[in-house]
Amino acid sequence: MIILNKQQILDKFDADTITLLLKEGFIAFSQQQVQMPPVQHLLFEQANGDCCIKSGYLQGDSQFVVKVSGGFYDNPAQGLASNQGLMMAFSAQTGEPQALLLDEGWLTALRTALAGRIAAELCAPKHISAMGIIGTGMQARLHLIYLKSVISCRQLWVWGRSETALEEYRQYAEDEGFEVNTTQNATELARHCQLIVTTTPSREPILHAADIQPGTHITAVGADGAGKHELSPELVTKADKILVDSWAQCTEFGEISQASQQGLLAAHTLTEMGSVLAQGISFRDNDQQITLADLTGLGIQDVQIVKGILA
Amino acid sequence: MIILNKQQILDKFDADTITLLLKEGFIAFSQQQVQMPPVQHLLFEQANGDCCIKSGYLQGDSQFVVKVSGGFYDNPAQGLASNQGLMMAFSAQTGEPQALLLDEGWLTALRTALAGRIAAELCAPKHISAMGIIGTGMQARLHLIYLKSVISCRQLWVWGRSETALEEYRQYAEDEGFEVNTTQNATELARHCQLIVTTTPSREPILHAADIQPGTHITAVGADGAGKHELSPELVTKADKILVDSWAQCTEFGEISQASQQGLLAAHTLTEMGSVLAQGISFRDNDQQITLADLTGLGIQDVQIVKGILA
Repeated sequence: MIILNKQQILDKFDADTITLLLKEGFIAFSQQQVQMPPVQHLLFEQANGDCCIKSGYLQGDSQFVVKVSGGFYDNPAQGLASNQGLMMAFSAQTGEPQALLLDEGWLTALRTALAGRIAAELCAPKHISAMGIIGTGMQARLHLIYLKSVISCRQLWVWGRSETALEEYRQYAEDEGFEVNTTQNATELARHCQLIVTTTPSREPILHAADIQPGTHITAVGADGAGKHELSPELVTKADKILVDSWAQCTEFGEISQASQQGLLAAHTLTEMGSVLAQGISFRDNDQQITLADLTGLGIQDVQIVKGILA
Repeated sequence: MIILNKQQILDKFDADTITLLLKEGFIAFSQQQVQMPPVQHLLFEQANGDCCIKSGYLQGDSQFVVKVSGGFYDNPAQGLASNQGLMMAFSAQTGEPQALLLDEGWLTALRTALAGRIAAELCAPKHISAMGIIGTGMQARLHLIYLKSVISCRQLWVWGRSETALEEYRQYAEDEGFEVNTTQNATELARHCQLIVTTTPSREPILHAADIQPGTHITAVGADGAGKHELSPELVTKADKILVDSWAQCTEFGEISQASQQGLLAAHTLTEMGSVLAQGISFRDNDQQITLADLTGLGIQDVQIVKGILA
């Protein structure tokens, strides 16, 4: 069995190759060519942590992948990363373990940020006077790096709860070439931004319907388990078009799940990213629409990023 | 992270210590003190294989466990074991991986056989003129070893499809001190035996209602995924009392699931092993009852056996 540590994994990571694999994966998923059992969730209230376990197999592949991914939000106070976890590849011919990728959560973070880039390609309006990032953590940083390659705008608003974290993020984003405004008022951020990414594990809505202007796209990546929500159900309902990575997962525990379970999405068509990618078209029809992409994270993304690392 | 190979794991394995941990685990499970998300199943038709992923956390423990367990039934022809897999322990405080147990499926096999021993303690009739084992594989062998310590009878009937496998099993069981009869006729086996264990991944019933005499106990451990069945639904219905490891799992995909889903178990009370263990009583009321134990395998068993190995 191959065992790779974080540095060995990052040395093998190529964003563009893996983005292509991810797109193929989303398409295969929406074409029912992927076995992807329902996600397992564990909750560790005493440690302010949670864990999800995803597995997937793309029909015809020589391997399948299992991923254990934790978020332990008190870790930073101990000098540890919030994101923890590993991925494993097994032979689909014999079941033998083939590779253990001790990525410390990086592959999940990277494939999430790359899915966000794909969503931005499909949904971003033509005119963006500023981008907005909700959150200051690892996902907020990775999104910025990968959005840079598809969005030319370098005006940035960042929302966070902690002034220290906001200042650290400002430094980071300035080093990446952005002009940065920080705020603890999400309404102010939304007033300036036409492309917003929400990246927090919040359980209370941060953005509300009244905050959002026509012609805005929001990608929500924080909700990956029951009870996590960054957008109010009314904001979700206000969206003209909603892109989901998985109809089943998003309606069960994604950002849109509350609105869906309250029957507020009757007038909406939920379109899977794989269906849009298969057609090779933009998801957005005009520059006035409000679009929303709800990304819960799919086992097939883990399958594809592991394939890209081990290739 | 600690990495243990199969031999290192087996060196640390103590059947009696782990049996106590398993009993505690079954009780905690039935008392809702265990987080155990629904099992993930993957199917590899092209390879005659399947895989299940289980996870579990006993409230208050310092670690949680994830297990990947495969059955690839063409492996023996390539000189590989059918059972594959590994178990992992993670910190419930930080999410960090703590231990990787490369057990090649042995811990699953061992905790299954030990659960079978617990079921036999709870259900076996007083009078056993012969024990019957359906199957000749690893589980058939492990059950024999652990049943020896709770059942004094040394008369054995073994059913298998292959004469070669039956002869190999005969040799094995004779070395363990049994007088062995082999057969390819399960009805003949059932006529002689009051304690029967079924251990195959069969998708067609091997034992039928007419085969079973009053005063018989059957432990079924083969059905751990949709479509696997060793007993006919009519035989399941004929049982006077049914013990299950998990009400939810057994009715979904266990040996009793067909009968349950066909509405044939209306008159039956399904009792969880943990409830019986908590009361410290025998499950069997008299020597004429037909009892059935349906063991699908629980994530809490993996939690407890890993705890026992790492202690």
